[in-house]
Amino acid sequence: MIDHTHDPGLTSWIDSANDPATDFPPQNLPLGVFRHAGSSEGRSGVAIGTMIVDLMEARRLELLDGEAARIAAACGDALNVLMSLGPGASSALRRQLSELVRADTERGNRAAAVADHLLVAQRDAVMQLPAHIGDYTDFYASIDHATNVGSMMRPDNPLLPNYKWVPIGYHGRASSIVPSGTPVRRPRGQIHSEQVNAPSFSPSQRLDYELEIGLFVGQGNSLGTPIGIHDAGSHIFGLCLLNDWSARDIQVWEYQPLGPFLSKSSATSVSPWIVTCEALAPFRAPARERPGDDPQPLPYLDDPKDREQGAFDITLEVYLQSRDMRARGMAPQRLSQSRFTTMYWTAAQLIAHHTSNGCNLRPGDLLGSGTVSGASREARGCLLELTWRGSEPVTLASGETRRFLEDGDVVTLRGFCERPGYRRIGFGECTGEILTADN
Amino acid sequence: MIDHTHDPGLTSWIDSANDPATDFPPQNLPLGVFRHAGSSEGRSGVAIGTMIVDLMEARRLELLDGEAARIAAACGDALNVLMSLGPGASSALRRQLSELVRADTERGNRAAAVADHLLVAQRDAVMQLPAHIGDYTDFYASIDHATNVGSMMRPDNPLLPNYKWVPIGYHGRASSIVPSGTPVRRPRGQIHSEQVNAPSFSPSQRLDYELEIGLFVGQGNSLGTPIGIHDAGSHIFGLCLLNDWSARDIQVWEYQPLGPFLSKSSATSVSPWIVTCEALAPFRAPARERPGDDPQPLPYLDDPKDREQGAFDITLEVYLQSRDMRARGMAPQRLSQSRFTTMYWTAAQLIAHHTSNGCNLRPGDLLGSGTVSGASREARGCLLELTWRGSEPVTLASGETRRFLEDGDVVTLRGFCERPGYRRIGFGECTGEILTADN
Repeated sequence: MIDHTHDPGLTSWIDSANDPATDFPPQNLPLGVFRHAGSSEGRSGVAIGTMIVDLMEARRLELLDGEAARIAAACGDALNVLMSLGPGASSALRRQLSELVRADTERGNRAAAVADHLLVAQRDAVMQLPAHIGDYTDFYASIDHATNVGSMMRPDNPLLPNYKWVPIGYHGRASSIVPSGTPVRRPRGQIHSEQVNAPSFSPSQRLDYELEIGLFVGQGNSLGTPIGIHDAGSHIFGLCLLNDWSARDIQVWEYQPLGPFLSKSSATSVSPWIVTCEALAPFRAPARERPGDDPQPLPYLDDPKDREQGAFDITLEVYLQSRDMRARGMAPQRLSQSRFTTMYWTAAQLIAHHTSNGCNLRPGDLLGSGTVSGASREARGCLLELTWRGSEPVTLASGETRRFLEDGDVVTLRGFCERPGYRRIGFGECTGEILTADN
Repeated sequence: MIDHTHDPGLTSWIDSANDPATDFPPQNLPLGVFRHAGSSEGRSGVAIGTMIVDLMEARRLELLDGEAARIAAACGDALNVLMSLGPGASSALRRQLSELVRADTERGNRAAAVADHLLVAQRDAVMQLPAHIGDYTDFYASIDHATNVGSMMRPDNPLLPNYKWVPIGYHGRASSIVPSGTPVRRPRGQIHSEQVNAPSFSPSQRLDYELEIGLFVGQGNSLGTPIGIHDAGSHIFGLCLLNDWSARDIQVWEYQPLGPFLSKSSATSVSPWIVTCEALAPFRAPARERPGDDPQPLPYLDDPKDREQGAFDITLEVYLQSRDMRARGMAPQRLSQSRFTTMYWTAAQLIAHHTSNGCNLRPGDLLGSGTVSGASREARGCLLELTWRGSEPVTLASGETRRFLEDGDVVTLRGFCERPGYRRIGFGECTGEILTADN
């Protein structure tokens, strides 16, 4: 079967999907869970232009059939069941959804006739988490990020000896993952200054964002049965934006010897729309090349196909808008832009490594990539790097400066894919405002 | 209302509960989830002697009434709903269960008359996890353990500067938590030897157990709302035994800078019966005293009542039985005995610290105490300490020696509480056999 779902010429009967600037053209079709304002019932949906296709309604209106209809029936207030069904199911659903939003298909004509029932405006919906996230793991897969952070502590020897062998990661906190838009309260914690013996318990003064990609696990594996590197890519359902809010002052005092804990667990924000691996297929790219003096990956992490197209060419951006900027009507200011192709480890390598000891992944589990930084200053994905631990403040258009985040700051992550001959697709946004610690 | 549920003179119409050696006398009444062999349906139950009271049957047979009956109805294949209801609900259920198993009550007489429907022999049941565990956190609360492990790396300065201020912990893996009895496959992973530049990917040669207590969270908290130290104890539903299987060779190579990951996530075993805080009330004890030159806890971790009775006086033991010992009919050999009163941080302090940044706990979340070691050699709760990183092998009764675990070894944790004037209560066991990595 020829896959027409990426054809750049596709147009939709939903006008806003044809806007060249939209993140959600007919070629994207990302999945999420929303509720109507005033209701508590979660409903699965698909973003298209400024609208949402309500999957349950699509099924009720008989706009989906066969496997796609059965999948839509299984997607209630979470996408875990769909995720568990594997790439075949996702593709089957995608093909019918593509027809449903198109202007030139019989399915599209039928859908347009019942648009009032089928569509919800995104502005009238409240987005929820797209899945029940059983476990959340955060990696450290950007060598530029690891090198920058390491340089601050060990200028002559920034990368630890394990970095080029082991996809470094740690278990994160699942309960405090929140959808984009949820305000983020500045955490309190133990903060230790070199000048004083006793730490204080006080609001973090070094609150930071981290620009990351989130990977949702599709089909899982049984405990004791690793996922081989050749299969690992097919266990990724889709990608989102992820902000791993980090309190640097809490982190530096607590993290020895067992790693970050409360510095990372007060909140983690994710964008609500999962861009599926099917939608991202045209934007696969070679894995970052390893210079000749870097070790080659061990066999359990090495796959020729993954080397050729294991990366995703996603451009990622961070924007900041202070309270003062909002009051003065100033637009959010871009702080950085980086590319997901620069990661040292591919998504498949993260999956293969994670399960190599027999650890089981479950559908809906979330993997963070780690901060996506590049080699240049403009590509640093967190303030710790961008201001070099606060020593090089960033100046905002309002004249304010930032070493770390201030109360009232709104941080917005954005991501998109562009390639000649293909329609641009985007991730929407992952946003959060910093609230004062005084609650 | 006077609480008679701990009276040492209580006897049961279930004979095995009156055996002085049982872990499950009428004063204990631990809760768990079982299924009948051959069935996949999880059922909540209460251990009593060698039997299980089936909670759903107890309700169906109208042996529970009022709040206790409503609770029993809400306990299906997991105890999360009961946990969410708080200490009042647990106590209400406990009072009626105590009457139900007693020989001298009207409720007990009615129960004895329908014993065939009400009871299941433990040997005919398969135990499951007692709750859906949303998040699992592992602490490092034994100062003797932290000092021993630190000594191996820094003989002159074993404890890091943060230890006496911060209850050190890290996020663990929830998906690979298994009930006692589940075999544990030796994990493979990256192992690095100082002599060779490249790590190998091979079965762990330094697989270890860690003797811990697991704390199940009862009522949770909302994101952004810490649980104060004065309330923290009431958010603990009950305790179990926990074995944090650890691959030391994988751990030492992977853990910098973000902490243990795959070395800990291949499996974590828990005993299936949760001994409730109500059952443990007579065995509360003062928190470990801090010498004069130790810092006092910061105010958010300091509570006079917690200092007086924040500890649990539980004796903990580790047994090992090799394949050879089993073949020769030799009993498991005790490797260590330690006491939970020696921990540097109390359970309430772990809860208060965990939520101090606003992180939310959910009913059924699991907290591990960290390895429970004492000051003496006999009280070392893992082989890393007991054999001092393999340099002082342990000799088994079979003549074999152990530096770390071998395939076929069965590790069993046990725990119990004893106090003059009270009936001894126990935790049952947490056991697992090591399977070869070659699968």
